Amino acid sequence: MSDGGSQPFRIGLLGFGTVGAAFAELLAARAGHIEKITGLRPEIAGVLTRSRGSFDDVLEGSDLVVEVIGGLEPAREYVLRAMAAGRHVVTANKQLLSHHGEELWAAAREHAVQLRFEASVAGVVPVIRVFQESLAAAHIDRVHGIVNGTTNFILSEMARTGATYEDALAEAQRLGYAEADPTDDVNGKDAAAKMAILARLAFDTPVHLEQVVYEGIEHITADDMEYARELGLGLKLIGTAERVDGGLSVRVHPAFLYGGHPLASVSGPFNAVTVESDAITEITMSGPGAGGPQTASAVLGDVISAMIPPASTPETTERLEIVEDVESAFYLHMEVADRPGVLAQIAQVLGLQGASVKSVVQKGLGENARLVMVVHPILESKLFAAVDLIGRMDFLRAPPRAIRVIDETFE
Amino acid sequence: MSDGGSQPFRIGLLGFGTVGAAFAELLAARAGHIEKITGLRPEIAGVLTRSRGSFDDVLEGSDLVVEVIGGLEPAREYVLRAMAAGRHVVTANKQLLSHHGEELWAAAREHAVQLRFEASVAGVVPVIRVFQESLAAAHIDRVHGIVNGTTNFILSEMARTGATYEDALAEAQRLGYAEADPTDDVNGKDAAAKMAILARLAFDTPVHLEQVVYEGIEHITADDMEYARELGLGLKLIGTAERVDGGLSVRVHPAFLYGGHPLASVSGPFNAVTVESDAITEITMSGPGAGGPQTASAVLGDVISAMIPPASTPETTERLEIVEDVESAFYLHMEVADRPGVLAQIAQVLGLQGASVKSVVQKGLGENARLVMVVHPILESKLFAAVDLIGRMDFLRAPPRAIRVIDETFE
Repeated sequence: MSDGGSQPFRIGLLGFGTVGAAFAELLAARAGHIEKITGLRPEIAGVLTRSRGSFDDVLEGSDLVVEVIGGLEPAREYVLRAMAAGRHVVTANKQLLSHHGEELWAAAREHAVQLRFEASVAGVVPVIRVFQESLAAAHIDRVHGIVNGTTNFILSEMARTGATYEDALAEAQRLGYAEADPTDDVNGKDAAAKMAILARLAFDTPVHLEQVVYEGIEHITADDMEYARELGLGLKLIGTAERVDGGLSVRVHPAFLYGGHPLASVSGPFNAVTVESDAITEITMSGPGAGGPQTASAVLGDVISAMIPPASTPETTERLEIVEDVESAFYLHMEVADRPGVLAQIAQVLGLQGASVKSVVQKGLGENARLVMVVHPILESKLFAAVDLIGRMDFLRAPPRAIRVIDETFE
Repeated sequence: MSDGGSQPFRIGLLGFGTVGAAFAELLAARAGHIEKITGLRPEIAGVLTRSRGSFDDVLEGSDLVVEVIGGLEPAREYVLRAMAAGRHVVTANKQLLSHHGEELWAAAREHAVQLRFEASVAGVVPVIRVFQESLAAAHIDRVHGIVNGTTNFILSEMARTGATYEDALAEAQRLGYAEADPTDDVNGKDAAAKMAILARLAFDTPVHLEQVVYEGIEHITADDMEYARELGLGLKLIGTAERVDGGLSVRVHPAFLYGGHPLASVSGPFNAVTVESDAITEITMSGPGAGGPQTASAVLGDVISAMIPPASTPETTERLEIVEDVESAFYLHMEVADRPGVLAQIAQVLGLQGASVKSVVQKGLGENARLVMVVHPILESKLFAAVDLIGRMDFLRAPPRAIRVIDETFE
């Protein structure tokens, strides 16, 4: 893996379920790069699962402990013991932090170690870091979040297909977006735990899960979705933390959002958080809220931050060639004389350059016609060569125009 | 300002234009909070403008230098001299970094100081921090960004109103979203500088502004917008940095986005960046891309990070009361007997609780009717009391249902 020139950085891994296994895999894949940017060679030095390993051995052999067991105990005990032994800890455990956050953060301060927890809220969406660092001095007025992917998937399905709650839940279970027992997701409790953590960071005040009022989506009907569409609204499970009369309200409930709200377009299993403050107006962050590799990426970002504080921009280690000619789909706009054979000639030029036409709209304009085409992805130089040729044809009434189309699902 | 118990942290401010003045104001407003979380008392120790101050004096009296002069020289010289003198530097200067980034980052490493530049790209949207920290070890495939607020405003206006490019530009100038000479915004050069910085961080390879291919929006017509709408696409000025055949393509050009793309809903003067990678799928961050207070907030976030590395979660300094009853707008759904007086009775109960009805839709269903109302914001306890009363009325055919509506612009 390395020539042994770097010092190892030993990671003790507590838990080897979906996230733990994805973390080990991601770390192996990125170890070389991490060694280049940190000067330390990260390695999994020990693993504890229900059936193998001992906590004492893992702790003894590690510089940092990653906790992805979940639940309250023994996770709490392990995290406290690791910090007491001077180890940094990275955790993905929202239950633990929403119940015992103050105790754990106090222990981290007492033992002068880092307790990082990006993966505990909104998966790989970097909300924790942004609250703790970018917005450390901001006077935040309100946080709105879609922080449960299961319920957002179910509501998106209901909106998209007109399905009932029960059918959309079954579909979510089939696709792995909902567990066999989805209770804590659909009743709002999982989102409430995450909002407790976000509210604590955003408003600098202790917030326990039990102080969060929550309501789930079990009673939403297909009918509600239909009215939402009629009213131009989207329906989401929204977590809110906001200043109210000098106090703080933290709650989770289904809510309609008007179409222009930054959370209205967040669909499927994605999570998103919007932060509002006078000085910043509002910022929104969104991305996958769960998934093994995604959660593992958030854990790994925390591990690297704990390995070396990112004080300065490291020297580049890559020298990628800068490429100028790439593939794009294109929209073409041509004003042409309205006579036979024009479309055929244009199609022929495009075809010779390898451009494949996806759609054509032609509109008559007196003696002329306007031709709008969309072509499938093609190397830009080839498309521009075709456009150049088309532009010289005598039936052209104005220079042809080409604009790129970005669309992953387009082809 | 303080009882003098804390050490001062002296900030030298180079430039006192819109951003510099907003920074000084924001720092004054948040100094007490920053002192609580860092243990240091931040203060503006010196200011340099074209007409007052000397760089040597400002440097001598500061622990950290904020550069918001803009442009290449003398900004480059000042930043290099400040770092050589052992000062951390926070800058908002995209030109400087897209031209001289490698020289400046090397100087920061050489002198073991921090050079932070969150405000140089996408204003308060924390893209720089996320690339440098959260995604430090991610293998990024592609970055798409709307990184120029002027052009996004112009294109949004054209889409919204059908205006020509010229009229939308004039409107942007009237509202302060475009400068008197908008050349570098509308021709894509400003966005190109920002994409050079993002590409360098995302792909760990040196990228100079001159290597970025760019094209502006000056030739977009109202007609293009109309076709975009017909095709279900949005038109934006998009910066792209992506791996292509083992190399790197960095470019800026107008592009159509399909409706479901995370950047398609970013409108007005906002900026947004989407990062794609196998392990993370994709994350998107959006917010105001410019503005004095917004840019100053990004600068202040950097200053605080330089003051104290955020190793652990600080003890809370607030004890806000947790509030349980708040105001919301509501959607009410009632199945009622279709007979005279029903609507009047419901309206009376709502009115007695202080609920004001915004809209009503009634549909006949044989002998029954379905009544859907939206009510203006009201204290939740009052709305629920009204719903409880309505639920007991003999004309109700099913329990009434209430769902919150979130909408700033709703009232």
